[in-house]
Amino acid sequence: MFARVDHIGVAVEDLDAALQAYERDYAMALAHRETVVEQGVEAALLDVGESHVELLRPLDDASPVGRFLARRGPGLHHVAYQVADIDDVLARLSAGGVRLIDARPRPGIRGSRVAFVHPSATGGVLTEIVQPSEVHA
Amino acid sequence: MFARVDHIGVAVEDLDAALQAYERDYAMALAHRETVVEQGVEAALLDVGESHVELLRPLDDASPVGRFLARRGPGLHHVAYQVADIDDVLARLSAGGVRLIDARPRPGIRGSRVAFVHPSATGGVLTEIVQPSEVHA
Repeated sequence: MFARVDHIGVAVEDLDAALQAYERDYAMALAHRETVVEQGVEAALLDVGESHVELLRPLDDASPVGRFLARRGPGLHHVAYQVADIDDVLARLSAGGVRLIDARPRPGIRGSRVAFVHPSATGGVLTEIVQPSEVHA
Repeated sequence: MFARVDHIGVAVEDLDAALQAYERDYAMALAHRETVVEQGVEAALLDVGESHVELLRPLDDASPVGRFLARRGPGLHHVAYQVADIDDVLARLSAGGVRLIDARPRPGIRGSRVAFVHPSATGGVLTEIVQPSEVHA
């Protein structure tokens, strides 16, 4: 069902500072940076193997990542798995009784289509499903 | 420096129930199960691409994962990156001023050698470095 870990989402307060730390301390390369208004974040993708670390700075305090930062502070926010056909996977999860946040895909970073599974379905882990755009598959 | 995401560590209260949910809902296959006394956990590795999800049940309330569960509840606990030479990577991190929990590697799951970087060094993300045993590299 899931081809790989697409990315690990990390909530940060200062995107430039976090990027510099990952580039300097972990020698990770910046792959992409984008403001994703749909999700209320400015995001940066860093390369690690076939996956990415996604640093997320909230655009405002009322966004999901802004509320997460206020409640729990910076740190691990979600894990995202890559799929080939997000519509098929969402249909299978839904048929299996898995509680979804997004019944239908919405726009994600780099032209991807994404949907979130409710944390209650996976033991408190906010889980994202990602179908990359064909360019980045 | 880091070859890939080795695994994502998830703190759970009931390992059997969590395993069943990941196998049933996400069609992930169990790769390995082991009690790692050194880390105070019973752990299960599930396959996803070149990475794993590592489900962690604390052996007692005083262990690091036990304290995490009491404080934050079940959910994302740490991210682990795979390296070829953990001694070299620890030396480079240390020389770069990165705050480490483990200055030297200690035994991890499946005969691996592991070390933890302090969450304060990576914006609240507990980060593990893993050098697999040659059998599982």
